[in-house]
Amino acid sequence: MAESWATFGVDLHVDVARTGSGLRRGLTDALREAVRCGRLAPGTRLPSSRSLATDLGIARNTVADAYADLVAEGWLTARQGSGTRVAQRTVPAVPASAARRPRSSRGPAYDLVPGTPDLASFPRAEWLKASRRALTAAPNDALGYGDPRGRVELRTALAGYLARARGVRADPEHLLICSGFVHGLMLLGEVLRRRGARTLAVESYGLDVHWGLIERAGLGSVPLPIDELGTRTDDLADRDAHAGGTPGGVLLTPAHQFPMGVPLRPDRRAAVVDWARRTGGLILEDDYDGEFRYDRQPVGALQGLDPDRVVYFGTASKSLAPGLRLGWLVLPPDLAPEVMAAKGGADWSCGVLDQLTLAEFITSGAYDRHVRASRLRYRRRRDQLVEALAARAPSVTATGIAAGFHAVLRLPPGTEQSVVRAAAWHGLAVHGLTSYRHPAAAPPPVDALVVGYGTPSDSGWPGALEALCGALP
Amino acid sequence: MAESWATFGVDLHVDVARTGSGLRRGLTDALREAVRCGRLAPGTRLPSSRSLATDLGIARNTVADAYADLVAEGWLTARQGSGTRVAQRTVPAVPASAARRPRSSRGPAYDLVPGTPDLASFPRAEWLKASRRALTAAPNDALGYGDPRGRVELRTALAGYLARARGVRADPEHLLICSGFVHGLMLLGEVLRRRGARTLAVESYGLDVHWGLIERAGLGSVPLPIDELGTRTDDLADRDAHAGGTPGGVLLTPAHQFPMGVPLRPDRRAAVVDWARRTGGLILEDDYDGEFRYDRQPVGALQGLDPDRVVYFGTASKSLAPGLRLGWLVLPPDLAPEVMAAKGGADWSCGVLDQLTLAEFITSGAYDRHVRASRLRYRRRRDQLVEALAARAPSVTATGIAAGFHAVLRLPPGTEQSVVRAAAWHGLAVHGLTSYRHPAAAPPPVDALVVGYGTPSDSGWPGALEALCGALP
Repeated sequence: MAESWATFGVDLHVDVARTGSGLRRGLTDALREAVRCGRLAPGTRLPSSRSLATDLGIARNTVADAYADLVAEGWLTARQGSGTRVAQRTVPAVPASAARRPRSSRGPAYDLVPGTPDLASFPRAEWLKASRRALTAAPNDALGYGDPRGRVELRTALAGYLARARGVRADPEHLLICSGFVHGLMLLGEVLRRRGARTLAVESYGLDVHWGLIERAGLGSVPLPIDELGTRTDDLADRDAHAGGTPGGVLLTPAHQFPMGVPLRPDRRAAVVDWARRTGGLILEDDYDGEFRYDRQPVGALQGLDPDRVVYFGTASKSLAPGLRLGWLVLPPDLAPEVMAAKGGADWSCGVLDQLTLAEFITSGAYDRHVRASRLRYRRRRDQLVEALAARAPSVTATGIAAGFHAVLRLPPGTEQSVVRAAAWHGLAVHGLTSYRHPAAAPPPVDALVVGYGTPSDSGWPGALEALCGALP
Repeated sequence: MAESWATFGVDLHVDVARTGSGLRRGLTDALREAVRCGRLAPGTRLPSSRSLATDLGIARNTVADAYADLVAEGWLTARQGSGTRVAQRTVPAVPASAARRPRSSRGPAYDLVPGTPDLASFPRAEWLKASRRALTAAPNDALGYGDPRGRVELRTALAGYLARARGVRADPEHLLICSGFVHGLMLLGEVLRRRGARTLAVESYGLDVHWGLIERAGLGSVPLPIDELGTRTDDLADRDAHAGGTPGGVLLTPAHQFPMGVPLRPDRRAAVVDWARRTGGLILEDDYDGEFRYDRQPVGALQGLDPDRVVYFGTASKSLAPGLRLGWLVLPPDLAPEVMAAKGGADWSCGVLDQLTLAEFITSGAYDRHVRASRLRYRRRRDQLVEALAARAPSVTATGIAAGFHAVLRLPPGTEQSVVRAAAWHGLAVHGLTSYRHPAAAPPPVDALVVGYGTPSDSGWPGALEALCGALP
């Protein structure tokens, strides 16, 4: 039912028969149209989301989301203290193609695809405080062309933090700030290829974007088998004798295998280090969510076992936000010069302001506080997930849940595809285990869903869990 | 003469016979030693730079600089409202190798090597304000894995700004945010090579780091000749008939040739566009300092002549600070997908917080204000340089001074090397024209110094100018 709302003197044509994301989309479209046609003049102050929601009889969040969409698109501006206004169009109008491009808000109502933390809990106020302190204290030359390794303040802060929290043996001299895990993997791929490697061993379940990057660097990605105890690193030794030759390295997620969720067992940790020592191969340790462990002390980083053979990859993408584009490598000393050369010389580094801010964030203790709060948040959700499954989907078991913010839900045999389809029908984005399989790996041993329970906001989580339970057999 | 100062209860052993940077270094070393040995305990509040300077009878800036060095090294912390304190060493002590690494402060007293703007005039307070507004207004999903092109807010703001200030025809859809000029050049080098190009034409004077990147991308760099009227783009046409084949593109600095300082003449602008249309070659337009023009209206970007054949490269490194690591490409529509693919997919982008802040900085008008203030600052210095030369070194002529923040000082024949040596003796870092010559280019037509007058702070500039005049014949 299309209805015309006259509010703050403007008619908004919105289909109120829509619900949830449909209603948000309708309101967004109506407001955009009102700005585009000039019915809402530049500079006009919009009512608060609360009062417009009351006017329209809809949820305040729906209005707030619509405003946020239009701010992101450039139609509205939001400033603290002056509310939300129609943008001054001193810049040329955004071409229709840009304004109307598909947006994530047009996707499913709930997102349980793993990989992104709860962005609504990003500590904005604390970050801004740290940013102010960091920029105030920074010497002028910090703003210049910097050390390609990144700012010494951040490298020093991270070396201390990683030693304390993850058992990493790190010297700030051999720490490299990069633009997230993918940047680090690109650099290591390039270095391994230049060293003459032809393949990199990977886990048989993981992310195809990583395998794609490895191949783009000119290396083949060769999957290692996986079982209930984690990745079969003993298989690396067997490969020594094979025709394909020894891989130049192996990419692992030892603390919390992605996506299976198991930690690498101690004997397999030792086996892979032995292999690296014997063959000169490198271990690339992707410690993407090492901070988030619930049931016992964190599994320390593999890097602590042999800093000369392990490259440690850390990231702010899970602990804070992917948008920061901040990651770090702890490099074996004899590898450091080559990786720095691959990074491209003095000009090619990440923005210093976020680096200085993160350094201040860590040394002031705010990072630890944020990680602790996030750990509680995700643990609570994990417990709610397990309880909901026990009550409503007893044929489904959650595994890989001792850490991180995703779980593997084992499904009755043969049901994975139908559950993924049912989830989509319930407005839920979620992936089956199959979609994480390396093309050359064996088929999945079980039917399963990989559920990222960290992604929704606190307010979105109950609905996401409800939709998930509705889709399960 | 080594003297021992007892101040705030601590003995500082500093050689007061030193002056300038030597004194700063001595004070820095003495304070570092006091912290290292525990004579200054963690958490101790240091006196203000003003009061310590008065105590010691030295310039306040010297104390402030020493404090800033030690903050950068992690020995001290500086926070607004709580002054400068000895760092709490909750992190492991910085290894001696890091703390004692060579620092720029141990280099020459004055730096007139072009390329870095006056970092002391970075608008810290305005930037922090914009940062607060931007982060407060940002929707949550801005903090996630973003559009590989960069945030739409910044692309939209830049498209408007570039149209207005530089005559660039830009659609935010085809604008790409990158991590500075070097990142952009790496991307274009990769794309050109994939398209089958074997060489890229370059100007015969420029930066070897750029030629190195071009070669790293698998392309040869072929210098075009230069004369008083700028780069001889007519030479490109002559090359069509040559054995080496047509270059895949040409890298130019049309608004203000780096380092010669001349703008590309209108007929040569037309010639290069004709060449690109005829051969399908690409023009890479490096508009590094296009905002800074003094004697008449800015020379508009070449891109305006043919947005289908010109890739426009802009950067915040000269207008704000290199440490931001923010640059932008305006891409011909048919090239955009390839460049975005080269950028590496959704994960590989620059930090969003600085992007959102710069967008807010531009749309709020703060960017224009900062550029205007910088233009006045650099113009004043340029005028002072010209006056000082007229009065004290009449055999030297400044050229290329209608724009930017560097000048080419023409020297009497045969004196370039001896002047560079004399400058070093005066504590001045400055390069001769020869050091910007492409290895395959003709020798310089004149002896000259390339003087970056933008780099010193306002307080350092008079001393730098004095040292320069002292070194000139």
